[in-house]
Amino acid sequence: MAVLPPGVSADAFASALREFADAIGSEWVFADDDDLLPYRDHYSPVPEAAEELIPSAAVGPDSVEQVQQIVRIANRYRIPLYAISTGKNFAYGGPAPNVRGSVVLDLKRMNRVLEVNADRNFALVEPGVSYFDLYRYIQDRGLKVWIDTPDPGWGSPIGNTMDRGIGYTLGFYRDHTAAQCGLEVVLPNGEVMRTGMGAVPGAPTWQEYKYGFGPDPAGLFSQGNFGIVTKMGIRLMPQPEHYRNGLITVPKRRDFIALVNTVNYLTDLFMIGEPWYGSPLRALLGNTEFREAATRRGGVNEEELDRFAASAGLHSWQVELQFYGSEKTTLANWEYAKERVARAIPGARMIDGESLPVPLTPEQIAETTGPYPTNMRRNVTQGVPSLGIWKSLGRTEAVPDAWAKGHIGLFAIIPRSAEAVFEAQQVFGDTLRELGLDSGISALNTPLNWHQFTFLFSAGFSTGGGNFSATPEGKAKINHGLKTLLLKAAERGWGEYRAAPYFQDEVAAAYSYNNYSLRRFHETLKDAVDPNGILSPGRGGIWPRHLRGDRA
Amino acid sequence: MAVLPPGVSADAFASALREFADAIGSEWVFADDDDLLPYRDHYSPVPEAAEELIPSAAVGPDSVEQVQQIVRIANRYRIPLYAISTGKNFAYGGPAPNVRGSVVLDLKRMNRVLEVNADRNFALVEPGVSYFDLYRYIQDRGLKVWIDTPDPGWGSPIGNTMDRGIGYTLGFYRDHTAAQCGLEVVLPNGEVMRTGMGAVPGAPTWQEYKYGFGPDPAGLFSQGNFGIVTKMGIRLMPQPEHYRNGLITVPKRRDFIALVNTVNYLTDLFMIGEPWYGSPLRALLGNTEFREAATRRGGVNEEELDRFAASAGLHSWQVELQFYGSEKTTLANWEYAKERVARAIPGARMIDGESLPVPLTPEQIAETTGPYPTNMRRNVTQGVPSLGIWKSLGRTEAVPDAWAKGHIGLFAIIPRSAEAVFEAQQVFGDTLRELGLDSGISALNTPLNWHQFTFLFSAGFSTGGGNFSATPEGKAKINHGLKTLLLKAAERGWGEYRAAPYFQDEVAAAYSYNNYSLRRFHETLKDAVDPNGILSPGRGGIWPRHLRGDRA
Repeated sequence: MAVLPPGVSADAFASALREFADAIGSEWVFADDDDLLPYRDHYSPVPEAAEELIPSAAVGPDSVEQVQQIVRIANRYRIPLYAISTGKNFAYGGPAPNVRGSVVLDLKRMNRVLEVNADRNFALVEPGVSYFDLYRYIQDRGLKVWIDTPDPGWGSPIGNTMDRGIGYTLGFYRDHTAAQCGLEVVLPNGEVMRTGMGAVPGAPTWQEYKYGFGPDPAGLFSQGNFGIVTKMGIRLMPQPEHYRNGLITVPKRRDFIALVNTVNYLTDLFMIGEPWYGSPLRALLGNTEFREAATRRGGVNEEELDRFAASAGLHSWQVELQFYGSEKTTLANWEYAKERVARAIPGARMIDGESLPVPLTPEQIAETTGPYPTNMRRNVTQGVPSLGIWKSLGRTEAVPDAWAKGHIGLFAIIPRSAEAVFEAQQVFGDTLRELGLDSGISALNTPLNWHQFTFLFSAGFSTGGGNFSATPEGKAKINHGLKTLLLKAAERGWGEYRAAPYFQDEVAAAYSYNNYSLRRFHETLKDAVDPNGILSPGRGGIWPRHLRGDRA
Repeated sequence: MAVLPPGVSADAFASALREFADAIGSEWVFADDDDLLPYRDHYSPVPEAAEELIPSAAVGPDSVEQVQQIVRIANRYRIPLYAISTGKNFAYGGPAPNVRGSVVLDLKRMNRVLEVNADRNFALVEPGVSYFDLYRYIQDRGLKVWIDTPDPGWGSPIGNTMDRGIGYTLGFYRDHTAAQCGLEVVLPNGEVMRTGMGAVPGAPTWQEYKYGFGPDPAGLFSQGNFGIVTKMGIRLMPQPEHYRNGLITVPKRRDFIALVNTVNYLTDLFMIGEPWYGSPLRALLGNTEFREAATRRGGVNEEELDRFAASAGLHSWQVELQFYGSEKTTLANWEYAKERVARAIPGARMIDGESLPVPLTPEQIAETTGPYPTNMRRNVTQGVPSLGIWKSLGRTEAVPDAWAKGHIGLFAIIPRSAEAVFEAQQVFGDTLRELGLDSGISALNTPLNWHQFTFLFSAGFSTGGGNFSATPEGKAKINHGLKTLLLKAAERGWGEYRAAPYFQDEVAAAYSYNNYSLRRFHETLKDAVDPNGILSPGRGGIWPRHLRGDRA
């Protein structure tokens, strides 16, 4: 299974490995199959195939200077490097690179929390710091700031942010790219650069003003291959004194339109945290007649679905709202949410949830449900990292069981409106059903919410067989299905915001405005700053000149 | 006074002007001295001098295609272009370019509001759209969204955002760069590119998800010279139903520390709008003894200042807070602000302000003061553009009186803490006094607040003479003073976030980390995408290769 970097001889590679070892110590250079197993994509869409994205080696530097040395060696040997922080982003490719034979630059030893400031509300971390690490650092010192953690929390703020990850608290902090404040980057030529105020030597405001003076290149480093982030600032949410939640239900299918607009209003005034949409009608999907109605090709009959809901005594949609602040603020915001919904939607019901002083007790945080049926996991609403999500994915173990179970995440960016959700349900559902892939997408799927909606069309698979089996045949069917969906989505102007390396060229293909002028611009920059094309070639669909081939 | 682009002969320039005229119509090509007067910097630090940044011509395209044609012509003739939207950014150089002899690309004819969406809360505008235009568009249609306007409001969202402008409503929207969502850009080679979801043809989410897939180059276009922005999306704040304000005063100088931390807390939980700090002790500056105490070199005696405050019956500091939301939410947030201040600061007083249904009446908006002494201008708290600020600058006319009166804006980015403010008061105040420039900076100056503090050290001047006279000698003294302050600030790690072209190289000089690695990175990109260096050379301190000279 041993692979070499493309175009590099076995002798040259052995020599490069010796240079890596001289730079960082031989105990931090891994090239044996066994040692490399953790650097493979355990949810790979093409496991054990010739196209599986397998690294040739992995190196584990402990400092910025060591990262610089590795980059310089890689330049001399023209070896592609692929930087990871913790490599735990399994649904998006895990630690495995875009190019087979790359050397994984594993930054998890660089795991220092450099600063947390609870008056000015920011942190400065290294790439190997996980959400757990940062959370513990804050808790150990009794600091009253929250992190905004993804779920699960074993990833790192830097890795997550650089892949445009999201969390579950207040809107501003949920957008991890927005909450980034200050980068230190090792460039493809081995130089160290700092963005924003970090470019002013000794600046005390590196984590407060992200733009600095002149152009701001920070965006090039997220989902990009222009540098290796070795330090990052994060704005932190102050710990609120109170948490409250509530449930709103609306009777009819089309009530979702006014519900979404009302929630958009509250979100954009920063009066609520993450809104969590759902439909209790999912409980009826076991009923063949209802299932038929909720997955009707070409679009559902809304009145038919409303009749099912009415006869089952169920509402069509619900949204759980989270509130943060003082006890009175959370109450006033919840009452206002009720008032605006009542004005807009006849028959809506508002059900008080919990009202809890912050910090919640460990028992309160461990709950996964409130007093009403919910899909929301409590820990993330409180900025508390956990691994418990594996349970809700129907799995009993946190550590991946290689190639047997897993899922592939793809999220389409769609408008923040109910009409767009209805359309996505139909387009994705119909397409998958036509392909013989029963994905579970019906007229009841709901979006995730930031400033936009994202509509999940991930695929889970397991050793259990069937359409989503983890066999090569099962995976081939899934891969074909997902790639077909990417094309269907692009026809409607829906692009995806994130993808595993295996799918990145297909995702990037949708971003084709003016004959790919954005990609051309990026590749012009890429060739200028990384003439040897050694840094994460292919990441985000951006390829260095010598690997672009005859793409036309 | 007629000037030519550097290195371009009179014949070649005449030929270029004919080509511009063929492309956009001769009535939109301006090269006469009279016609060019509006394109000069009316607050120029070096008026009528050989170094005044005077354009050679101005061109006014009406469409993206015309912009592309102009860029292509400029490339053939190696003529530097300098793009402006409305050119009204007078304290930062107005419409005048970084390089004498540039052709100003005046985009104000491209003034279409392309979309305002009041359910998903965004707008899409062209560069010539002013804040007034956008406000009127929204009002005319009765849409319930707010803009976040700078003061004055005659500038444009695109021009302001591309210079990292700010406003005065809720924190997220105040940061115009953060609220940007989607750019269309004409690149230096004449190609059109769209960022974020705009790169997906027909994407309905261009104004909802700004990052797209892969790297995001948007930051390169703010304060940069990588492209000409021809369309921009903006996230809009939903119109709240209620507005409330309140005043908090604290007795002692050092109470400012806890006050700032408390306000930071409320800001970062999005419970307040713009906090407006001040000190009523400014009223005592006419008293020689107090003035001496408040401008003492090397740092003030805090107890001495407290004694002055106590004997005058004045508090040391105050902050005005703004609240948006429902009536009950604004009340709960104000009560919570009082509670947190009371816990932290003995002797603090909390004075209820106004509590008003939104929209305010024109009379309420026109007020510049509430029931207590204030510096806050009401219109901007409501997202209503105005030109009234000229009055508060002690001027009677809105249109600049060429070279007679004006001001030069420079803001240092300092930490969001009272200690940093105290230090800035001393450093900037002492330095200016040592230079014989009585700038009015004392131990009472307060910062502007976003996620960081900015400390103003602008210079106003007028025909009135004295240290700040508008004579060449007076201006030379001011220029020297400001450049000295830039060096003093850089020693402390304080950089500026914005500057007129005349000062941009000096401001950029502070951003020198690792021997200017950030600037080197940018200039590598610049040479790659603009090999002829035609687009706004020098902007943000970034120069194309042929104009970098022997900078070492």
